[in-house]
Order: sequence, then structure tokens, then C-alpha cells
Amino acid sequence: MVRVNENYLKLKAGYLFPEISKRVNSHLQKKNKLNLIKLGIGDVTEPLPNACIEAMSKALEEMGTSSGFKGYGPEQGYLWLREKIAENEFLSRGCNISSEEIFVSDGSKCDSSNILDILGDGNSIAVTDPVYPVYVDSNVMAGKTGGVMANGSYEGLIYLPINELNNFKPELPQKRVDIIYLCFPNNPTGATIPKEELQKWVDYANENNSLIFFDAAYEAFIQDKTIPHSIYEIDGARSCAIEFRSFSKNAGFTGVRCAFTVIPKELMGRDSNGEKINLWKLWNRRQSTKFNGVSYIVQKGAEAVFSDQGKKEVKELINFYMNNAQIMRNKLQVAGFKVFGGINAPYVWIKVPDQMTSWDFFDYLLENANVVGTPGSGFGLAGEGYFRLSAFNSLQNVNEAMERIINI
Amino acid sequence: MVRVNENYLKLKAGYLFPEISKRVNSHLQKKNKLNLIKLGIGDVTEPLPNACIEAMSKALEEMGTSSGFKGYGPEQGYLWLREKIAENEFLSRGCNISSEEIFVSDGSKCDSSNILDILGDGNSIAVTDPVYPVYVDSNVMAGKTGGVMANGSYEGLIYLPINELNNFKPELPQKRVDIIYLCFPNNPTGATIPKEELQKWVDYANENNSLIFFDAAYEAFIQDKTIPHSIYEIDGARSCAIEFRSFSKNAGFTGVRCAFTVIPKELMGRDSNGEKINLWKLWNRRQSTKFNGVSYIVQKGAEAVFSDQGKKEVKELINFYMNNAQIMRNKLQVAGFKVFGGINAPYVWIKVPDQMTSWDFFDYLLENANVVGTPGSGFGLAGEGYFRLSAFNSLQNVNEAMERIINI
Repeated sequence: MVRVNENYLKLKAGYLFPEISKRVNSHLQKKNKLNLIKLGIGDVTEPLPNACIEAMSKALEEMGTSSGFKGYGPEQGYLWLREKIAENEFLSRGCNISSEEIFVSDGSKCDSSNILDILGDGNSIAVTDPVYPVYVDSNVMAGKTGGVMANGSYEGLIYLPINELNNFKPELPQKRVDIIYLCFPNNPTGATIPKEELQKWVDYANENNSLIFFDAAYEAFIQDKTIPHSIYEIDGARSCAIEFRSFSKNAGFTGVRCAFTVIPKELMGRDSNGEKINLWKLWNRRQSTKFNGVSYIVQKGAEAVFSDQGKKEVKELINFYMNNAQIMRNKLQVAGFKVFGGINAPYVWIKVPDQMTSWDFFDYLLENANVVGTPGSGFGLAGEGYFRLSAFNSLQNVNEAMERIINI
Repeated sequence: MVRVNENYLKLKAGYLFPEISKRVNSHLQKKNKLNLIKLGIGDVTEPLPNACIEAMSKALEEMGTSSGFKGYGPEQGYLWLREKIAENEFLSRGCNISSEEIFVSDGSKCDSSNILDILGDGNSIAVTDPVYPVYVDSNVMAGKTGGVMANGSYEGLIYLPINELNNFKPELPQKRVDIIYLCFPNNPTGATIPKEELQKWVDYANENNSLIFFDAAYEAFIQDKTIPHSIYEIDGARSCAIEFRSFSKNAGFTGVRCAFTVIPKELMGRDSNGEKINLWKLWNRRQSTKFNGVSYIVQKGAEAVFSDQGKKEVKELINFYMNNAQIMRNKLQVAGFKVFGGINAPYVWIKVPDQMTSWDFFDYLLENANVVGTPGSGFGLAGEGYFRLSAFNSLQNVNEAMERIINI
């Protein structure tokens, strides 16, 4: 009988979001309440920008004609999209990133887990704690960790706490690590990283020949002009960092599916003989063999994000959600909570009342306010005692949810 | 420095299609000919069905409204699409496949290579020869083979020749294997497999606890009513087979991106203790963690393939390409070639003239007829001496290409 990948068996049974669904469904059956407000998973709610709709409509029309029909596109994405990304997301910020270094994909979740395909065994891996669960689970599934421990952490992974004690800025690892996952603006805490702080990480990585995976999926929410949107704004990042980016949260593409990954051409790993191996080439080969490019229609929609109208509409979307976040911060403070995040990120991270766990507070909020959030402990050990609320909802729902929480 | 996946370094440098591009570009520079006709890669050329365009337009419109907007969809695909697939592709053919066993994805290339994620090391793997290169390369990249040998084959893989001697029907392996890749209608040879022949494989797999990967991407081209479209038409297939299917070649979705994989719920592998492990559950976990579903717009387009109008239009597309294939068969026979395939598949597989290799013939055709095809040896050792021509082109180009070949 065929042998399975046993690393999957190490995964904790109760994944965060299915557990939330289970509790919500059981709550709804008991209460038969229809006015549940979901501020749980980080999924956008506002319609797509018109600029994107129009571009995709035009692309669709083309696909219905002999002269405009497009079959297989380049696995790396169409050059016209990669050029727009390079120009608008990197060159305009003074980052020296070329279109060839940009790989268009159908999602950051895919990219940030598939990237492990090109890496070998024996790398030491650090993640922040709390953390986006996909970084951890994809490493477990790829056999890069040991088993799960009693506290829910995985053997072999290095966890870097981010919490009130360090002002949500991870400290450099005490022992050298090969790979570091950083996500800023941070999911789930909503924290950001200033340039000088990110410079420390880039310097560390270059000094230690480490590789940084920088997830900037939430960069569009940054309001403070001094905070970096891309790790390539930092000197030396080209020789130590891969960046993951997405159209999901800025242009609302969670249901449309488009993202991209940046791999500078000089980025190197090594084989067991110590020979340097180019990571761009490995990823290019990975994508050429195991991926067939993103829908032409979707890429046309993504391109429109960089039109004047697209930029204006994306800005409006960001302002809309950030206004929600501001309301949430204010009202939650009125309600007596200690509130973090929500200033340069669409997530508000609150300290749960003493004597309650994150899951206790989840149940408490569900029961008494009919509001769904995400327990901090679902993002890791150091998330215990915290709770994530997402600003992705209508203004009416956000206001209503905050009123209910205040009035518990 | 980070350790890379050294298995990538085993890959042969000259991948088939890049090498073709190189030769074509060099030819075009020399000759400056604009009337090149490409019958090389298997990419469709006709516009999308109107039914799909209309459905996608409607979906796009929804995405521009608050009430119709869709964020993240289920990683496994929307149930309405999975139900349509189950009903139209399986239940209607007497195959007992439920919607839950269908995983919608963005491509068969992705699925047929990602499936290795859930399998362990130490499985013996058989592929046909010639073969779709992705099956081989994805195994090499995942470390399931040894190095490349002098003849271009990989150590550790079991190659099952399909050629004139066995009438393009692979023979059962002499030694037990764990995994067998079968693709029928076959890419590249255009051969098909009758029910009784496929039954032998299913029986073999069940007797030997082997797993069959059945790639039926070209099933829509089957004209002969006795040939199976799905392996689940065969008794016993539910306990030994995973099937890969696609909207690329029937509805022309190569640039739209939608496919699906079928994993029956009783399908089992084993861990190192000999415990049975459910493969559906592993794949479900893989997709939930490493994939974020297919674009809502694209899934709506795929659903329309099963509307009355969609079915009619897909049939017209198939008839169109199969008429091309018929013309190619006839004309190539007139030109004196021994011709295979092209009856239930969009590929015509010809024997190249004696004393020529597949690549010799590629250069000869390019030079003298300005026609691009694919050298059989690019698909494996046993493809040497053959040549693939694809029926995916306009009627005019197909006629013109055939005239040129006849008149060399």
C-alpha cells in the first residue's frame, strides 16, 4: 500500500477556523439569532473596485473572440502586470526590484507554503508567536519540524514572542537561524515595524546568511509614512529576503485570487557541498513545472489596480476599513479594553479580561454580544490572553458590534 | 546559509518546450518568416463558449455589488460547482462519485504535481514512456527518484513503454509498484484505453494495493462510445484511483484556469506502522492549508459548461478540433506518414522517417514547412522516432500546414 506523508499526522486536530465555525454553529442553533456579526476571519466585505470590474469585463469580452482569445499565459504572470507591479509597488518607493523578480500567483497562502518546495531539510526556522497558522502548518506538513508538544508548539521550530513586553517587536533570535518568517503589518496583532527595527533584521540575516520571508499582505493599510511597505526599502534586503504580496486585502481580491512573490536574482542558498544555488532559478523552475499561471481575466483585474481610477478606489477601500478600525479602537477603549493594532493594520488586538482565556472570551462575546472574533491563542501560545477583531465589515455592523460590546 | 532542495539539481537542463522556443526563435531570426504555424504545445485556440462568458460576466457584476460580493470561497470549491460536476461527469455515466469527493482547483498541472505532497518516501513509481513531463519532473523535484541517467531517464522510476509494439497499451509492470500514472486519452500519443484494458489495471492495483493516478484531461475528445471517460466507470476503481480532470481542453479554459481532482473517500494509504490513513482527509488538509480556492468568477464560468447551452458549445468546440485531427490524419497519410492517435484525442502521433531522430524531424519540418510540432523524444526515451502534432489551431492553419507538409 502506498506510503503517506506522515508529517500530516503531526498536525494538531483542531485547526483554528473550523473550531470557530463549530462553536458559532452550535451557538446559532441554540439561540436562533440571525443578527450575528462576524469580525473573525480576515475576509474583505466591500465590492471590487469598478476599475477592476471594467478591466475584467473587457478581458472577458476578448476571451470570447478569435483575435482576443488567450490560452496558456506565462507561468510567472504576464509581463505587463509584472512591470506595473515593479513600477508602482517597488520603483516608486525606491526599491530596486525588476519585473523579472516578480512571480504572479493565485494567492499568498499558496506562495508562502509552496516556497518550502525549493528548500532542503536541516534549516532552522523561526516564526513569531502569535503567527499566521499557515507558516507553521506548512512547515509541519513538509517535515521541517518535530512533533507537537503538550503546549501546542512544535518541536524544532523557534518561536519569537511578540507581545506587550516587547511592544510587539520580535527580538533577534539568541541562536542563529536559517529562516525567519516576518509579517508586518502583523497578522494577528496589527503591529507594525519601523524602518530601523526592520534594518536590524536585515543586518542580522546578512551577517548570519539567514533568509527572511517577509509577508507584506497588509502593507496598503499603513497610514504612517515612516513605516516601510516593503522589506526592499531596507538596505541589504535584496541579498536576504523573499517578499509575499497580495491583491486580496487592498483591492478586495480574496474571492478573485491574485498575489505575487518577489525573489531578487542574487538571492542564494547552498547545496550539501556548500555550493551556492540561486533561489530565483529554483522558484522559476518550481512555478514552471507545478503551476500554470493565473487567469488572464484576473491578471487584467490586478493590472487595473494600478490605473488612476484603481488607485483612487483602493485608497477609498483602505480608508473605509481603517475608519472601521478607528471606531473599534475608540469604542473598545471606552468599554475598558486595552487595545493594540488598528492604526496601520485592519486588525485590532485586545487584551482579554483577567481570569479569562482567549477561548473563554470568545464564548463570552458570542454568548453576550452575538459577535464573533478570533481567540489569540489560536495563533500560538503567546497569543493566549489576547483576542483579534477584524475591521473588515460594514460600518453599520462595526458600530452595532461595538455598541453591543460596550453594553455587555 | 539556507539549504536548498537539491533534488531540483537532478533535473535535466533542457526542458522540452523552452528548447522548442529557442529553436523556433533562432529559425524566425534567420528566415524572418511570419507564416509559421504552431502545432506544438497543446493549447486551445478557439474563443470561450458564450455560456461561460455570460456566466462570468454575471459573476463579475455581482462582485461589484455589496449584496453579491464574494470573498474567500471554500478551498475545495463551491458546492454548486462540485454538485454539477458530480452529476454531469460521474453520476450520468454510472460512476458513484459524490460532490464531496471533488476538489476544484486552478489546474491539473498543479494537482497532478501537488498530489505528491500527501505521499511519503519509499513508494515505487511507474510512468508510461512517452509521458507528460510534469509527472516525471514533479517526482524528481520531490525527491522520489534518483539522478538522471545517460539516456535521460531517472533512476528509480519504472518506465512502461507505449509504442507500436504494444499497440500503445502499456503492459502491467513485472515488479509490483505502489503508484502508476496513466493518462488516457493519452498525451502525447493520442491513444485510448478500452474498458477491458483499464479493468486489468484496476484489478492489478487492487490486488497489489497500488494507487493509480488517472489523468483524463482529454476525455471530452472521445468519439467511440465504448471507451471510458473516467476510471470510475471501471469496477473497483474507487478503492485504487485518483482522477485528474480539467476544463482546459473541453471548454478552452487554458487561460481561465479551472480543473478538479477526484479522491474517493475510501481510498487509503498507510503509515510506517502499517496503519491505514485516509487519502481524502490528507488532501483535504493539504488544500485547506496550502490553497485558497479558485476565483468565484472562474467557478461560475466552469458551472456554465454544464448548462444546455454550455454543453452544446463545448460539443461544437470538440467537433471543431476533431475535424482538424481528421484532416491531419488523412493528409499525413497521403504524405506517406504512419499515423497514430487523432481519433479520440486532439493529438496526432506520427512515425518520423527512418534515419531521422525526433529532433531531426523537428528541424526538418521547421526549415522546410515552417511548421512547429513536438519531438516525441521530449516525452521520454520511447518517444524517440515519433512526433506529436496538435489539432488545436484554426481550420485554415491546419489545412495550410498539411499542404506544406505534403509538398515538402
